[in-house]
Amino acid sequence: MKTILIQLDTDPQPSSFDRVVAIDAGIDELFCYGGVSPESVEPLVHGAMFTRGPADLKHTAIFVGGSDVASGERLLERVRKTFFGPIRVSVMMDSNGSNTTAAAAVLSAKKQFGSFAGVEALVLAGTGPVGQRAAQLLAAEGASVRVASRTRDRAAKTCAAIASQVSGGKLSPWSTASDAELRSACEGVHLVIAAGAAGITLLPADVRRSIGSLKVAIDLNAVPPLGIAGVEVMDKAVERDGVMWYGAIGVGGLKMKIHKAALRRLFESNDQVLDTAAIYQIGQRLQ
Amino acid sequence: MKTILIQLDTDPQPSSFDRVVAIDAGIDELFCYGGVSPESVEPLVHGAMFTRGPADLKHTAIFVGGSDVASGERLLERVRKTFFGPIRVSVMMDSNGSNTTAAAAVLSAKKQFGSFAGVEALVLAGTGPVGQRAAQLLAAEGASVRVASRTRDRAAKTCAAIASQVSGGKLSPWSTASDAELRSACEGVHLVIAAGAAGITLLPADVRRSIGSLKVAIDLNAVPPLGIAGVEVMDKAVERDGVMWYGAIGVGGLKMKIHKAALRRLFESNDQVLDTAAIYQIGQRLQ
Amino acid sequence: MKTILIQLDTDPQPSSFDRVVAIDAGIDELFCYGGVSPESVEPLVHGAMFTRGPADLKHTAIFVGGSDVASGERLLERVRKTFFGPIRVSVMMDSNGSNTTAAAAVLSAKKQFGSFAGVEALVLAGTGPVGQRAAQLLAAEGASVRVASRTRDRAAKTCAAIASQVSGGKLSPWSTASDAELRSACEGVHLVIAAGAAGITLLPADVRRSIGSLKVAIDLNAVPPLGIAGVEVMDKAVERDGVMWYGAIGVGGLKMKIHKAALRRLFESNDQVLDTAAIYQIGQRLQ
Repeated sequence: MKTILIQLDTDPQPSSFDRVVAIDAGIDELFCYGGVSPESVEPLVHGAMFTRGPADLKHTAIFVGGSDVASGERLLERVRKTFFGPIRVSVMMDSNGSNTTAAAAVLSAKKQFGSFAGVEALVLAGTGPVGQRAAQLLAAEGASVRVASRTRDRAAKTCAAIASQVSGGKLSPWSTASDAELRSACEGVHLVIAAGAAGITLLPADVRRSIGSLKVAIDLNAVPPLGIAGVEVMDKAVERDGVMWYGAIGVGGLKMKIHKAALRRLFESNDQVLDTAAIYQIGQRLQ
Repeated sequence: MKTILIQLDTDPQPSSFDRVVAIDAGIDELFCYGGVSPESVEPLVHGAMFTRGPADLKHTAIFVGGSDVASGERLLERVRKTFFGPIRVSVMMDSNGSNTTAAAAVLSAKKQFGSFAGVEALVLAGTGPVGQRAAQLLAAEGASVRVASRTRDRAAKTCAAIASQVSGGKLSPWSTASDAELRSACEGVHLVIAAGAAGITLLPADVRRSIGSLKVAIDLNAVPPLGIAGVEVMDKAVERDGVMWYGAIGVGGLKMKIHKAALRRLFESNDQVLDTAAIYQIGQRLQ
Repeated sequence: MKTILIQLDTDPQPSSFDRVVAIDAGIDELFCYGGVSPESVEPLVHGAMFTRGPADLKHTAIFVGGSDVASGERLLERVRKTFFGPIRVSVMMDSNGSNTTAAAAVLSAKKQFGSFAGVEALVLAGTGPVGQRAAQLLAAEGASVRVASRTRDRAAKTCAAIASQVSGGKLSPWSTASDAELRSACEGVHLVIAAGAAGITLLPADVRRSIGSLKVAIDLNAVPPLGIAGVEVMDKAVERDGVMWYGAIGVGGLKMKIHKAALRRLFESNDQVLDTAAIYQIGQRLQ
């Protein structure tokens, strides 16, 4: 029986990126839908639920994607509500690559630290979709996580949201609007992950050089100017100035491996929901 | 040469249900189009007609689907008009599963009666797309068919429409608006097929029990409350109270087999039109 | 690694014709997008550029199609601008079959003349997408090309456009609005290619018979009345009245072969742009 992946994309044109990755992951048949909304998704999910016998449901799966992560989350929620009892298929959500990118960034850091116990981590743009996910994974791993945003308020909301998912997570909100605030947020950190928008430098050179405690710097922005001054986009565990650097493309190889492994995992049983934590676990087994 | 099925769907998103069934029927390549109207269909049909040589036209076929059966009928008509002479491909129409469901229901009944000669059949919601098709197939098989609707007028129109296709068909229109009318319509029937909308009971328990002549009861509604009180959705030739019961899922297995067999049949020659009668015949050979 | 063709179509529904040809050319996976505009194409091209390693980029390619040739040209331009450095995939443009049809017409004529040196060629409807491309190919081959249009002005613009691409091309603009003008344009020509709209006769019988020098007549209109009186749509190097005739379907077989060969060529390296001249060269090697 052929494996079928139903790609539900919230953008008008379903992502060609996600399609190529699905083909390269070895999926037999790909059904792609663009412009999918929570309101229009039910019949598409029913088509996955009611066409194959219970024992064969694991050969069909759903992928939720698109450039807007919040829309993807709402779509995933509706997909899950459409299932009932054992009549379900596995589903993965990776809008804008948010889950696979966050997992790849945190796993790259883990390779350097071994354990996150005692690690002070700063996530710049920590309230965005990738930043929030990286902060969540770091907190779950036991790091002490500083969630940074332009306003302390937004950072605090993100900390609260993560705390509700990660019991015992050590999280603190930081504002990085001014140079002084940014320097405070950086004090004593061992790890910085910059998860901001393309073309915006979140950590200038002089501030970065002032962090004597810094061991690992990971930037997820591929478009110059990069997010952390001093990184190069191809960096992959490159040491410079006593810091281990990762750039967006350097992290991208692992991100791609995680994406493909997660897609293949979908077809092992019919009851999986591959969200941030589950995708991270899949990445961990790849190491 | 690969088999290609061009799925023309009248809904904005082409049915994922029909896509999975097509893959499971072994079709090599599926081209799916949503939001197809009679006005936009010509170039899509031309692409089927003018790309492969006359001897290879049978490797391409067209499937007309979508949730609205009337729209599907108009689309099928336009597809057929686009062909000319021997430059054509085979085409199947099964909007909302109407043809395969009606065929599966009538074939399930036939398994019980052997022959429909002398059988009094009542089709509840007999003016809807599935009901009308079931009534047509029963009439063609020689049953005496009572077409029931809320108004006698609509039922009469459906009887006339069927009579124009099935010469010598024994058809009568019935109103089932009141309890008394429903009881009259049920008097002396051996077979009831309920083809109504999801979640509406067409035949309550007390009326059903009052039909001493009833041998077979088939309900095509999968969403509770079911269409015939006393049926269970998984029933497949289950005897209870002296009646042989079929529920929507009990009929669904045969429906699926017919759907797949019809799709495969499309690729045996380039000149077939698989409509209600043709799809029923395909189902008969599967028995 | 599977070959992937990303079909970007400027029409709302991506051409089923181009899809069938792509499958028959042996491409493994086809991603089809309709309603693609220069504004929306960037992420689709990025999905081709950033998913496979540099050595594997040649297994992904892009096809630009749709019924409107000018829209296709704008789309091709934007696709090419999205690439940077060696991070690119091969791309073919054949909106409305314009490039493959023009190539097939000119190659059919070449089979008769051997060389175009000294050949006087007239292209009727020479300012349309197919006519202009045929004129360009003829000029590049050394024929003396008369570009005919209803107004001399439009013909002159097309000549200038072609001259900027074909250095040393012998081109002249002709008006064919009146019978007298048409007769002048035809005087002394050895080859006529009619590239007009469906159902319009560009060269009536009496004018055609008056061209004593005529050796080859090629009509690319498949819908009666045909473009050149006296042609038959299936003609393929059929001699009548001392003229070698080609009709639209007679040319169509070669067009199809060129189309498939060009698609296959896309996957030989990642840096090709298959436009009018490149597609013609591919056709030449098929002879």
